[in-house]
Amino acid sequence: MEEREDPQIIDPTDAVIRITASCICGSDLWPYRGLAPLPGPSQIGHEYVGIVEQTGAQVATVKPGDFVVGPFVASGDGCEICQAGFRSYCPNRVEMPTIGTQAEKARIPFADATLIATPGQPGAELIPSLLACSDVLGTGWFAAVSAQDGPDKSVAVVGDGAVGRAAKQLGADRIIAVSRHPERQKLALEFGATDVVAERGEDGAAHVKELTGGYGAHSTVEAVGTTESLRQAIHATRPGGNVGYVGVPVGAQLDPMELFASGVQLAGGVAPVRRFLPELIQLVWDRKINPDKVFDLTLPLDDAAEGYKAMDERQAIKVLLTT
Amino acid sequence: MEEREDPQIIDPTDAVIRITASCICGSDLWPYRGLAPLPGPSQIGHEYVGIVEQTGAQVATVKPGDFVVGPFVASGDGCEICQAGFRSYCPNRVEMPTIGTQAEKARIPFADATLIATPGQPGAELIPSLLACSDVLGTGWFAAVSAQDGPDKSVAVVGDGAVGRAAKQLGADRIIAVSRHPERQKLALEFGATDVVAERGEDGAAHVKELTGGYGAHSTVEAVGTTESLRQAIHATRPGGNVGYVGVPVGAQLDPMELFASGVQLAGGVAPVRRFLPELIQLVWDRKINPDKVFDLTLPLDDAAEGYKAMDERQAIKVLLTT
Repeated sequence: MEEREDPQIIDPTDAVIRITASCICGSDLWPYRGLAPLPGPSQIGHEYVGIVEQTGAQVATVKPGDFVVGPFVASGDGCEICQAGFRSYCPNRVEMPTIGTQAEKARIPFADATLIATPGQPGAELIPSLLACSDVLGTGWFAAVSAQDGPDKSVAVVGDGAVGRAAKQLGADRIIAVSRHPERQKLALEFGATDVVAERGEDGAAHVKELTGGYGAHSTVEAVGTTESLRQAIHATRPGGNVGYVGVPVGAQLDPMELFASGVQLAGGVAPVRRFLPELIQLVWDRKINPDKVFDLTLPLDDAAEGYKAMDERQAIKVLLTT
Repeated sequence: MEEREDPQIIDPTDAVIRITASCICGSDLWPYRGLAPLPGPSQIGHEYVGIVEQTGAQVATVKPGDFVVGPFVASGDGCEICQAGFRSYCPNRVEMPTIGTQAEKARIPFADATLIATPGQPGAELIPSLLACSDVLGTGWFAAVSAQDGPDKSVAVVGDGAVGRAAKQLGADRIIAVSRHPERQKLALEFGATDVVAERGEDGAAHVKELTGGYGAHSTVEAVGTTESLRQAIHATRPGGNVGYVGVPVGAQLDPMELFASGVQLAGGVAPVRRFLPELIQLVWDRKINPDKVFDLTLPLDDAAEGYKAMDERQAIKVLLTT
């Protein structure tokens, strides 16, 4: 933790927000562990909720005092990519890790198109669930949508507890959590999983097949991003079924012949969370979903280093930082 | 060419057909070139049209004398995979290369669910177009459907002339053929391509982007199956766009991080041609499409070896064999 100058409005489409809560993402551990090189001391963090302090001259949809939630990629909404719902790939996007939201304040580019104001000031008890919308829930939602999750389908979830929440909300009939960690299995069951598969690799895929009439799941969410988890996801899915992958596959390999032979369809990537934010915020606001369970440790921002340590050592699944 | 015993009905769901025409597929060149090992002397060929000679006791939808077209994978239609439209991945499927249709007669398993009778006896001029439905057109169609080709979209086609036909029929606004062979470029233009891109690899992808507002194609058909063609297809497609891949990626590599970074969605595999056959046969029957242009050499079955030689030496794109 160190003091930096307060962020300022740079472009007339910017807003500066006072951050109410941020959190530590699994992807933040890459630079923490020295596995993703940094150019030097850098701010970090990309998930956030907060209160608008200041807006640029062209900002019209949010105003100082509004409580806002934003996705981890800021973008406008005018280009063909944004219009098609893939704002996380907008050619003019700003990725929030380059700004760093594990901070007291942050500049949010393209504020009009990026931030969503909540219907009113949320009570403290809603903050964690709203924060979860910024990435983890939104990413899980995109994974489930990419996997074409829906009514009467079987859904396998490889690798994360929070994603099962989306699968359930989208109407899946059977939700199979593939996880070998007891605490994540527990979380998955709380989030609506109907079955847990604890075996690794091919044995895990075989178990999913066994639970789905021998065919494999209709839809599989891949939220890890390793060679093994990708293979497991593909092998756990039936021919013609869909894998929605959101785990960042750093250094992973994928044999296209194996994919071809499986008949499995592959969709996903960097989640365009903004597409889902209005719906997710409303679901949280109406108390229809409570993704706050994904946080199992809350610390003040000043103790962020302790939060990184806890996640690095697998003492915590996801750490919320309050400011 | 050698004499074999006539095929017989084995199962009550079989039919035996007299083959009117078959053809040589690019994939037949793998064993021809010694690149796909065979257990010993084997029949070969998987595309066919012909006249039903004999049916098993349980066959009800086709009868002796019917002119029929079938896909290159035989299957029933009762399991969940078949019901979902992915018969080419049915757990009980019979792949026609294991039977061999470059022959005078062939046994067709699961005849009821596999064969489609034409509305009447076709004239000789229709035979090549009907034969094209069996694999090359059906596969191209699946690729275009997998790439979510449709009205007002831009479609790039990497690697084959015949596939553009499907792209046009599905309503694409702009069809960009990526090919460096003058004769295939010509075929692509005849089949409805609006633009031709001749550059290889990244230069070709950049040219497609240039033709599509800098974004890349909405839909790209990948019909080659090499590491380079897969990369080119992904890079030619816009974020959120779709690659439909049907080229068999034998020995190819695919970097999942590159796919993730691109935001491109990947669908395809072994084409479930049977799903599209009724529609394709009707389009041919009504003279709305003429995929016969894909054949540029016709030989009697007795001269099949000459046909293989011509394709191996790139003297012919696709050889039709008459019996």
